[in-house]
Amino acid sequence: MTDEIQRLLRDDLRGRSPYGAPQLDVAVRLNTNENSYPLPGEVAASIEKALSGVVRDLNRYPDRDAVELRRDLANYLGHDLDVANLWAANGSNEILQQLLQAFAGPGRTALGFTPAYSMHPLISASTGTAWVDGHREADFGLSAERAVDQVTRHRPDVVFLCSPNNPTGTALGLDVVEAVLEAGTGLVVVDEAYAEFARDGVPSALRLLGGNPRLVVTRTMSKAFGFAGARLGYLAADAAVVDALQLVRLPYHLSSLTQAAARAALGHAPTLLSTVAAIKEQRDRVVTELTRLGLAVAPSDANFVLFGSLADSKAVWRSLVDRGVLIRDVGLDGWLRVTAGTPDETTAFLEALTAVLKENP
Amino acid sequence: MTDEIQRLLRDDLRGRSPYGAPQLDVAVRLNTNENSYPLPGEVAASIEKALSGVVRDLNRYPDRDAVELRRDLANYLGHDLDVANLWAANGSNEILQQLLQAFAGPGRTALGFTPAYSMHPLISASTGTAWVDGHREADFGLSAERAVDQVTRHRPDVVFLCSPNNPTGTALGLDVVEAVLEAGTGLVVVDEAYAEFARDGVPSALRLLGGNPRLVVTRTMSKAFGFAGARLGYLAADAAVVDALQLVRLPYHLSSLTQAAARAALGHAPTLLSTVAAIKEQRDRVVTELTRLGLAVAPSDANFVLFGSLADSKAVWRSLVDRGVLIRDVGLDGWLRVTAGTPDETTAFLEALTAVLKENP
Repeated sequence: MTDEIQRLLRDDLRGRSPYGAPQLDVAVRLNTNENSYPLPGEVAASIEKALSGVVRDLNRYPDRDAVELRRDLANYLGHDLDVANLWAANGSNEILQQLLQAFAGPGRTALGFTPAYSMHPLISASTGTAWVDGHREADFGLSAERAVDQVTRHRPDVVFLCSPNNPTGTALGLDVVEAVLEAGTGLVVVDEAYAEFARDGVPSALRLLGGNPRLVVTRTMSKAFGFAGARLGYLAADAAVVDALQLVRLPYHLSSLTQAAARAALGHAPTLLSTVAAIKEQRDRVVTELTRLGLAVAPSDANFVLFGSLADSKAVWRSLVDRGVLIRDVGLDGWLRVTAGTPDETTAFLEALTAVLKENP
Repeated sequence: MTDEIQRLLRDDLRGRSPYGAPQLDVAVRLNTNENSYPLPGEVAASIEKALSGVVRDLNRYPDRDAVELRRDLANYLGHDLDVANLWAANGSNEILQQLLQAFAGPGRTALGFTPAYSMHPLISASTGTAWVDGHREADFGLSAERAVDQVTRHRPDVVFLCSPNNPTGTALGLDVVEAVLEAGTGLVVVDEAYAEFARDGVPSALRLLGGNPRLVVTRTMSKAFGFAGARLGYLAADAAVVDALQLVRLPYHLSSLTQAAARAALGHAPTLLSTVAAIKEQRDRVVTELTRLGLAVAPSDANFVLFGSLADSKAVWRSLVDRGVLIRDVGLDGWLRVTAGTPDETTAFLEALTAVLKENP
C-alpha cells in the first residue's frame, strides 16, 4: 500500500494484514475445513437445472427478502421455526457482520472466548465494536462459571459462543448458553457452523430459541452441505431480530443464483449430508491416531481436529506442505488444526505427519 | 419489532425503516432501473455452461481474490487498467460499504450532494460515518464551485459524486471531479452505475484514474449488462486502494457461481450491451413526450427520467399503480422517476400517465 492511501486508511486498520489462510496449490488441502466430497452428480444436475431456471431473468433484481429460501431453511432446521425466524446472507460472515451492525458497533462491546472463530474479533473491529476476550480454559473448554463471570464483568452488547468451537472442536453444553443468557442483557450468538458434525447426544442451541428472544443461532451450508463455494450462511432467531437486520442489510444482498442454488441443494439435504458420517469417521480416526502418536488432541465435535503440543508447530506445518499436505496454523503456538478429509486424504496426512515427527521429534 | 429487541438495537437505528422500493406485482415495472430485456438465449446458454462448470466443486471455497473476474473487468473497462486496479463484490452496495469501512466509519465524515443515490447516506449510517449533505443546485446540477465550497468547508474523508446521478439522470463534467480532487484530501468516489447510458460525449471519470490515487470509480453490471439478479458491483482505483479493501472485505465474499456467471456475461459484453441503444431511445422518447405533456423533465444520461413538478406526486404514483404501471417515488415532493423500458412498456407508461394527468390535472 502506498503512503498516501495508508494515510487515508482508518487508524485502527493501519498495519493489519488481510484475513485468510494461505491458498497453496498442493495435493491434499485440509486447511479450511471444507467438505472434501464434490457434490454428487444427481444433486449437481438438480442445482444446474435450478440455475438455468433463473439465468434468463437475471436482468431483474432477486427477491430482496429471499422468502422461499428462508422457508426451506426453516423446514430443514425444524424446531417449529418459520420463515420469519430465518435470515440468510452471503456466508455466515455476512450474517455476523449484520448482527454487529444492528446490535453492536461504535460505543458497544462484543465478548468472545478465544481461541474461537477468528472472524468474530475481526468483524467486531471492522464494525467499530470493542472486543473483549474472555479466553477459554486451558483444555479449550468453557465452563458456565467462567462465561457468566466474564458476562457479568463486561456487560457486553453481544456475546459470541461457538459450538462446536473452531479451531478447537469443543462443543458447549446448553447449560453454558442458558447461563450466559441469564447473566446478561445483550444478544447471545451461538455460532453453530459445524453443528451437523457433532457426536451423538450433543444438543443444538436451536432447542433454546423458544422463549429466548435474545438468542441467535448462526449456521452455514459451507461445511456439512459441502457448499462453501456457493456462500450461504443463515441464522435462526426471534422474528424481531430478523426484522432488526432489515435496517442494516444491503438491499438485494443475495443473488438470484445463490437463492436458486441453495434451494436446490436443500431439496437434496439427506443426500448432501450423507458425507457427514464418513467425515466424522475420519475425524475420529485422526483423534485416535494422533493420540497414538503421543500428541495432545482436543476432543472434536466438528470436521477438524486440533492437535499439539508440538515443539515447533511452524516447522511441522512447513514440512507437511513440503510433503503436499496443507493444514492450518491457527496462530496457537504449538498447535495445528487439520480438517477431516476423505480416507485417502486422511491417510496422506497421517503418513506425512508420522514422517515429519520422526524427523523432528 | 418487539420492545426487547428495540432496546438492544443501536440507538441510531431505532425508528428507521428498511430501504427498498415496494415490490408490487404489476404488469409494467419501471421502478428500480432494471434493464427490461431478459438475457438473450446465446448468452444465457453460455452462462449456464459456465455455472455447470463450477457446481460439482462448490464444496471448495471460491477464489478469495476473484483474480480472473477482476482481469475480465479490467479488460472490459480499458483505460490501461489492470487486475490490481479492480475489485468486485455482491453489488456496488457492498463495494460502497467496504470503501466506508476502510476509509470512513466512526469519527469520520462522508459528503454527498442530494438528491443522489439514497444508499450513500444509508451505508454511511450503517458504518457509523457522519453524513454531510452538500445538496445539488435547484436544477439538479452540481457546479465545481458548489462542490469545492462544500469540500473546503467540511473536509470530508470520503466524497460521493454520482454521474450520471440517480435519481436525476444528471451527468457531471470531469471539471467537477478534478476540482473536488484538488480541493480535498480524502477519497473521491464517483458512482458510475449508469455510465453506459450516457449520451455521446459525456466522459467517464475512468479517464482521470491515472495520477489520481484518491479517485475511485464504482460500476455495476446490474443496469447496462442487465445483470441485476446476479449482484456484481465493482470498482476501479489505484492498486493501493484495492489493497486497503482487503483489510475489511469478508473472506470469500464472492461466490464461485457469481464469479463464473459474471465472467461468462463479460465474454458476451457487446451482445448484452446491445440493449443500451434501445433503452436510450426510449429514455429520450420519455423526455420528449413528458416535455410535450408540459411537465418539467431533468435531462438524463441514465436509463431513467425524473419528472415533475406534479401537484400531488403521491396521487399520480398511486393512480399509475392502479393502471398496472409501477414507477418510483424517490421522496422528492412533486417529482417521480420512471425507468426507460421496452417500447411497449414505455408506451404503457406514457398512456397511463396521460390518462392520469387528464383526471388530476
